[in-house]
Amino acid sequence: MAQSDAAATKSRKSRPPAEPTVSEGSLKRLKALARDRVVIEGVAPLIDGGRFAVKRTENEPLAVEADIFSDGHEIIAAALLTAGAGEEDWRETPFTYLANDRWTASVAFARPGPYRYTIVAWRDTFATWASDTKKKRDAGVEIALELREGATLLEKAADSGRGTKDQGKALKALRARVEKLAAKRDADALYAAFAEAETAELMRDVGLRENLSRYETEVPVWVDREAAGFSSWYELMPRSQSGDVTRHGTFDDVIARLPDIQEMGFDVLYFPPIHPIGQSNRKGRNNSVTAQPGEPGSPYAIGSAEGGHKDLHPELGSFADFQRLVTRAADHGLEIAIDFAIQCSPDHPWIKEHPGWFDWRPDGTIKYAENPPKKYQDIVNVDFYAGDAVPSLWIELRDVVLFWLAKGVRIFRVDNPHTKPFPFWEWMIAEVRAVDPGAIFLAEAFTRPKLMKRLAKVGYNQSYSYFTWRNAKWELRQYLEELTKEECGEFMRPNFFVNTPDINPLFLHTSGRAGFRLRLALAATLAGNYGVYSGFELCESEPLVVGKEEYKDSEKYEVRAFDWKREGNIRDDIAFFNRIRRSEPALRDFRNLQFLEFWNDNVLYFAKRTADLSSYILVMVSLDPHNPQGGHFEVPLWELGLPDTGTVKVEDLVADRQFVWAGKVQHWWFEPENVPYAVFRISV
Amino acid sequence: MAQSDAAATKSRKSRPPAEPTVSEGSLKRLKALARDRVVIEGVAPLIDGGRFAVKRTENEPLAVEADIFSDGHEIIAAALLTAGAGEEDWRETPFTYLANDRWTASVAFARPGPYRYTIVAWRDTFATWASDTKKKRDAGVEIALELREGATLLEKAADSGRGTKDQGKALKALRARVEKLAAKRDADALYAAFAEAETAELMRDVGLRENLSRYETEVPVWVDREAAGFSSWYELMPRSQSGDVTRHGTFDDVIARLPDIQEMGFDVLYFPPIHPIGQSNRKGRNNSVTAQPGEPGSPYAIGSAEGGHKDLHPELGSFADFQRLVTRAADHGLEIAIDFAIQCSPDHPWIKEHPGWFDWRPDGTIKYAENPPKKYQDIVNVDFYAGDAVPSLWIELRDVVLFWLAKGVRIFRVDNPHTKPFPFWEWMIAEVRAVDPGAIFLAEAFTRPKLMKRLAKVGYNQSYSYFTWRNAKWELRQYLEELTKEECGEFMRPNFFVNTPDINPLFLHTSGRAGFRLRLALAATLAGNYGVYSGFELCESEPLVVGKEEYKDSEKYEVRAFDWKREGNIRDDIAFFNRIRRSEPALRDFRNLQFLEFWNDNVLYFAKRTADLSSYILVMVSLDPHNPQGGHFEVPLWELGLPDTGTVKVEDLVADRQFVWAGKVQHWWFEPENVPYAVFRISV
Repeated sequence: MAQSDAAATKSRKSRPPAEPTVSEGSLKRLKALARDRVVIEGVAPLIDGGRFAVKRTENEPLAVEADIFSDGHEIIAAALLTAGAGEEDWRETPFTYLANDRWTASVAFARPGPYRYTIVAWRDTFATWASDTKKKRDAGVEIALELREGATLLEKAADSGRGTKDQGKALKALRARVEKLAAKRDADALYAAFAEAETAELMRDVGLRENLSRYETEVPVWVDREAAGFSSWYELMPRSQSGDVTRHGTFDDVIARLPDIQEMGFDVLYFPPIHPIGQSNRKGRNNSVTAQPGEPGSPYAIGSAEGGHKDLHPELGSFADFQRLVTRAADHGLEIAIDFAIQCSPDHPWIKEHPGWFDWRPDGTIKYAENPPKKYQDIVNVDFYAGDAVPSLWIELRDVVLFWLAKGVRIFRVDNPHTKPFPFWEWMIAEVRAVDPGAIFLAEAFTRPKLMKRLAKVGYNQSYSYFTWRNAKWELRQYLEELTKEECGEFMRPNFFVNTPDINPLFLHTSGRAGFRLRLALAATLAGNYGVYSGFELCESEPLVVGKEEYKDSEKYEVRAFDWKREGNIRDDIAFFNRIRRSEPALRDFRNLQFLEFWNDNVLYFAKRTADLSSYILVMVSLDPHNPQGGHFEVPLWELGLPDTGTVKVEDLVADRQFVWAGKVQHWWFEPENVPYAVFRISV
Repeated sequence: MAQSDAAATKSRKSRPPAEPTVSEGSLKRLKALARDRVVIEGVAPLIDGGRFAVKRTENEPLAVEADIFSDGHEIIAAALLTAGAGEEDWRETPFTYLANDRWTASVAFARPGPYRYTIVAWRDTFATWASDTKKKRDAGVEIALELREGATLLEKAADSGRGTKDQGKALKALRARVEKLAAKRDADALYAAFAEAETAELMRDVGLRENLSRYETEVPVWVDREAAGFSSWYELMPRSQSGDVTRHGTFDDVIARLPDIQEMGFDVLYFPPIHPIGQSNRKGRNNSVTAQPGEPGSPYAIGSAEGGHKDLHPELGSFADFQRLVTRAADHGLEIAIDFAIQCSPDHPWIKEHPGWFDWRPDGTIKYAENPPKKYQDIVNVDFYAGDAVPSLWIELRDVVLFWLAKGVRIFRVDNPHTKPFPFWEWMIAEVRAVDPGAIFLAEAFTRPKLMKRLAKVGYNQSYSYFTWRNAKWELRQYLEELTKEECGEFMRPNFFVNTPDINPLFLHTSGRAGFRLRLALAATLAGNYGVYSGFELCESEPLVVGKEEYKDSEKYEVRAFDWKREGNIRDDIAFFNRIRRSEPALRDFRNLQFLEFWNDNVLYFAKRTADLSSYILVMVSLDPHNPQGGHFEVPLWELGLPDTGTVKVEDLVADRQFVWAGKVQHWWFEPENVPYAVFRISV
């Protein structure tokens, strides 16, 4: 078009089309589509299209990735926008290019609460101009016209800016620069001024963003306090803390035990239900159908003439006692967690006060909990969709949680949440978080994988897991890869309990003390959150029935007494792991897990490290409590930028000694009567 | 609660809460959430959350999968709902359970056009009741109360039904059944009546659907005519069809060639641009910068004093000639495809008529197409976002396509669509489809993977692919696995061209005739859509520059003449493949590809089969045109339910003979001078 007709170039308006050829709706659609010239897709993390929040803890990095591209060859740029849920001002973080049209940007949030992110991307006209003009100049092509075009780009930006706040200073600087450029008479000097870093910086800050696209979704992010992702739980039954089977334990007895528990290094102290227990159909010791007089019954049969979910079991103490326990626990570095178990004993006050919350049968009775043809006669369930349960039952249940929150309890272990409607949890947890974004809910759902994941999506901060039943190396690796590397890692945080009042794992029935130590090592180092039910430290494992998971003489049905420091306990192991979990930042993270090769199927071997490698921990656990195991393993020299012949410094955290490993392949050995695990801290 | 207080059970209303404890907004949220008790998630196929349509061809099955579950142990049920884009009535197809809470339902659509699907799921109260009651009865438990509850379920359904159309008859039958049940006095007879299949059927048809959830998205589905997914293209330059280099070819010359092309079995006949060609900066033979007088120039430099995109190059013929060609082609089973190339020669009428569609420089010239520092002086590009390009340019370009659609062209091969805005394509293709849902667009984008996929998402029915550069067994397998098994299979349909006017593949420069035959075999059997640019059948491969993909003496810049039946041609191979592609339904599908083991890295071996196994084709292709290749391979006996010692009947479709294979491992051998491929049809 060097031959371009001068007349045509003067009148640069197209002739109107002969007749309207497009409908109103079509034109609207055209204009709506035209707004998104730059494509933003494949955004991650993104849970169900943004239906559920991505989870992080305070200050934990959130690396967002997206495919960002446009037609043609223009240089593009993109920014991650983040804001608190209610905020109007977005914070902008530039994206950097990875490969294959994939970009990334990373942020972190300092305080718990709801946030959201989205993405903007645009064609960077000035960067494109600068790159093209440099190429032409380098090739010796005349660039006088290009320099005029460049000046126009700067002038446009200086005239208007992007209309965002805080760009006044940069705009002023840009205007000064435009004047400086206008004064240049020599093409080389002009080009040099354009090529200065300041020009590019100013245009990056206030240059017009052509064809700015905005990702259609504002992706919710939920930020928890650290305890949601990193916590060490100790579970006990207050009834058994008196040290005397003939005397029901009290909150004061629990207070007396706090130094013991602190010594082991736990940070959460969790109690099964502490509410009044029903009399009707009360269960006797070892789950017998009828209780003998004086037997305490299951704490899960909640509610009696003495009250319901907002009351305390009188034998444990008063609210004043409970309050004192909460305070004293805090003094010992322990936070109290209680159980939220929605089932009712047939004596629960709700039955009289709110019959519309229950499912009545034609004969005027309420359905017992059942799994036909089995019946659970000491428990009846509320019906979340019964007559007038929506909304009054839902509100009351929320208020139960708020009640205990007001008493200083911020952690709730929830019993069997998968048998209650998901929408209830989603609503209730959001309500509680509006009051305290630091409230934590642990889902005790041992059910099908997708239900467990859904509970995490609707808001649970922590989830019980299948860990308790994963013993072989291959299954531990497979399960941990799923939890840490697949999408569920964005919203589900497992809590690895080594045992619970309901689960006396088969593995421990025959493993002896070595088995308890190795299971502890696995839970404490693999997971961010882990838990121990009291008795584990004493290597208690006697089952009610051989081959079954129910404990003999379970505290669920009777008052027990233990010598908490009796010989053979593993309190030192527990204290060791809880200590290094605190001191090594690498162990506070869950998803930084990396399995490494130990050429023996009975030894699990993995690394955890911080991004800056300042805390780099290697863990080996013999999975065989009966036989010596050992063999060769690889030192992850490649991760430290070292050749296979490289040397690393090693601190053996178990034996408290230091040495070096020279070369990638090394050797280790475990005897079951010695320590069945090894923990090393490596550095270059 | 057998001891339940009679007073309480009479008044089944809960007491109102002492004070309002929930805000308006919270209550609204509670009720909205409560509606979705049954979870529907993990829905597939679903492209970018429903932003883009899943693609199918007419009568091609669409199997939808979803994770569907609820809290507790109730039996659930689900249905797939499908409808045309404008229709209000949904067609219902029941889901069946797969495993791990995953369900599936399959539908197909008979006619091209826009459709949508969604999912409903509910708790099946009657099925749950029936299952629980049967368990209790089998265990000898008293079920009198259960029978009363069952009767209530039927009565409720008979009273109201689900309020859908066409249930009148079933409701009437249900009412009759309720009466029949009411007449039964004996529990056994009553149970027997409940257990009859008709009761379950009636309740399935009109029983109330408790806690009915509906998936939040209506997922768009685009259904194409079969040619979008199954077509065999032949590309030729009309200018070279006169058989005489001194005479420019015409549409009538093309008509004379139709029997030849039909004999090879193609069904699409595609021409590069047939519009007037610019004079300014016209390219000469072999892409020289200046044309000699009388040279025809590149057909991609569109537009001259003789017209633009809605005009014909005068030397080819008139619109009457073109119309005759379209009609005569149809008589030969051939559909005409034309090129939609948006670039303009500097002589294009738009430049004067619509200067506002172009990007003018400060000196009054238009930017040439360029890739700095390179310039393409015979072409200028419209600027889709220039002064008044939105919407008038977009509308005009749409009208160009509609213009040719009105002339009987329904297939458009689009030149370099990735250098034009994606929103334009999305809008334009939808506009054309509103006129003719059978219009087909092939994207000629050889660019980065995500751009190619995006073009398919925004509406392209077919896409050029990387096939032309995939020669080794591992890379063919890897690429085909991506295309057929990954998500892009839901929206992208490659067209495997063996060569194009721009791509004279390096492999063919040295492969000889065997190479042409094996590349043909791969394209014709691997892909649903494939294409051949004329000259391929003559094994033409002389490059302009050794080691480069440009053809010597390319028709793009001069008139050529060929003896289309000269010795050494592979017309018989082409006819063979086009024949079996038509006769074997297995070869009409693309995503049914299954690679099988041939223990030789130079032999690619795969199966294609219909779901009912009535068309079961095995293809082997030697990838080595120079040396004999062969070895052992596996017969997929396991897919036929046969043991490794089983026997299948085999038709060798190449040699036209029949035999059997007894046993899973067999042997085959290829000599490059013989046929480099084998095609078998197997049956039990």
